[in-house]
Amino acid sequence: MYYSLLAGGKRVRPVAVCLAYDYIAGSPPSDAPEAQLKDHYRDALSLGVSIEMIHTMSLIHDDLPAMDDDDYRRGRLTCHKVYGEDVAILAGDSLLSSSFEYLVREGKASVEPLRLLEVLERLSASVGNLGLAGGQVMDLECEGKPSAEVTLDDLRWIHKHKTGALLNIAVAGGAILGGAGDKTVEDLEVYADKIGLAFQVADDILDCTATSEELGKTAGKDEAVDKATYVRMMGLDGARAEARRLRDEAIQGLGENGGGLKALADFIVNRGN
Amino acid sequence: MYYSLLAGGKRVRPVAVCLAYDYIAGSPPSDAPEAQLKDHYRDALSLGVSIEMIHTMSLIHDDLPAMDDDDYRRGRLTCHKVYGEDVAILAGDSLLSSSFEYLVREGKASVEPLRLLEVLERLSASVGNLGLAGGQVMDLECEGKPSAEVTLDDLRWIHKHKTGALLNIAVAGGAILGGAGDKTVEDLEVYADKIGLAFQVADDILDCTATSEELGKTAGKDEAVDKATYVRMMGLDGARAEARRLRDEAIQGLGENGGGLKALADFIVNRGN
Repeated sequence: MYYSLLAGGKRVRPVAVCLAYDYIAGSPPSDAPEAQLKDHYRDALSLGVSIEMIHTMSLIHDDLPAMDDDDYRRGRLTCHKVYGEDVAILAGDSLLSSSFEYLVREGKASVEPLRLLEVLERLSASVGNLGLAGGQVMDLECEGKPSAEVTLDDLRWIHKHKTGALLNIAVAGGAILGGAGDKTVEDLEVYADKIGLAFQVADDILDCTATSEELGKTAGKDEAVDKATYVRMMGLDGARAEARRLRDEAIQGLGENGGGLKALADFIVNRGN
Repeated sequence: MYYSLLAGGKRVRPVAVCLAYDYIAGSPPSDAPEAQLKDHYRDALSLGVSIEMIHTMSLIHDDLPAMDDDDYRRGRLTCHKVYGEDVAILAGDSLLSSSFEYLVREGKASVEPLRLLEVLERLSASVGNLGLAGGQVMDLECEGKPSAEVTLDDLRWIHKHKTGALLNIAVAGGAILGGAGDKTVEDLEVYADKIGLAFQVADDILDCTATSEELGKTAGKDEAVDKATYVRMMGLDGARAEARRLRDEAIQGLGENGGGLKALADFIVNRGN
């Protein structure tokens, strides 16, 4: 659990929680001392850590031989290469349940109970059959077909669930913890779904433009296994334009305090450009 | 998910939730109509279903080739034999997260929020590194050794976590939903831990006395893989006496309305006798 959770990574989802929280609750002053920052972000970080535990679980399980069969992740051996498949499966299970345990334990001291329950319901829904597990099942089904038979709509469905679901709860959950009402949360979910797709487009671009060293995992794998990707469907320039289009759509409804969320969208798109 | 969840089974854990609930809140009249029973057991059944989803997840993952490599469960092919290992892993992940989603969604309408959060915290803790996943890791480690090197304390630690954790949350959670205070919950946890161990002793006895047909899974497997079991350590008669001893200790502190919980302890012990 520690080996994979503490392997680094961009921590995009926890950052998204904090930025959505600030979008609603306001940012701390830029010269705030660490203690004040910790206090300001306490609830947001509880959710951010929980989401990162779930994200790590999904990486451990996706890398298994029965799934994508990857040997490297974040520049080091995957969990099952070090600890065996059995322990890797159980480490994932334990990270998943511990994610909820952590969020309840940390959250109950300071978050209003009904608000915490709403975040828990959304968080658990983001993993299941209409969340990342469902997206992964559809992804596996599409991998069994020639890439030409997979449509752009299939691809968007897969990534809305596989990649988008956790970004959705990160943004929506951060906003809810910050005190947002239903309508604002709905608007932010549109933002989250767009940057979720942009994230995957950028990933597809990176898979065929970056080196394995830069990625920390095997590059060029999509093409080697004839995987349906945005690059394959739209070409490299088309995929880059698609990522920028998604970014523009994501940020257009943001209010004047949307600087942080705008910067996150830019960061995600610029990875692939 | 449906294939494994609806494969039957004794539903011991949901029954335990309902009996613990009744122990605190009182039983419905024996001639109560179904609508009244549904209303009485609404909260208990929400938790019972959630626990059964987690139990099913643990069976799906335990049966995988990388773990116990079993082809049959409850008289039919295991999940991965029908749907493939990849889908079986994801079905388990999805059952685990859906368990929390279901409990929040069903529970929030009628359970006091702080009480629901306490049950959620206990439920999630029962799965992780100090719950069934931790018990399974220790079990795998002990399987790697000759059975003679595994002590009775090792075995008890394994089963307290692997089998006992879900029975503990079933009994404690049912009592909490029924309105029990901390001291009563603690007393009931002693009951739950004892019947959890008795359950495993009975399982070990059945593995070497029942047929594969009776069990719905491969019988005699423990001996074939030189697994440390209560029967191997204590002999068949010794294991039966141990199960009865655990039953007696479990029920000794129960009050006068403990008839249901007593019957459950008897049912568990009698399976192996």
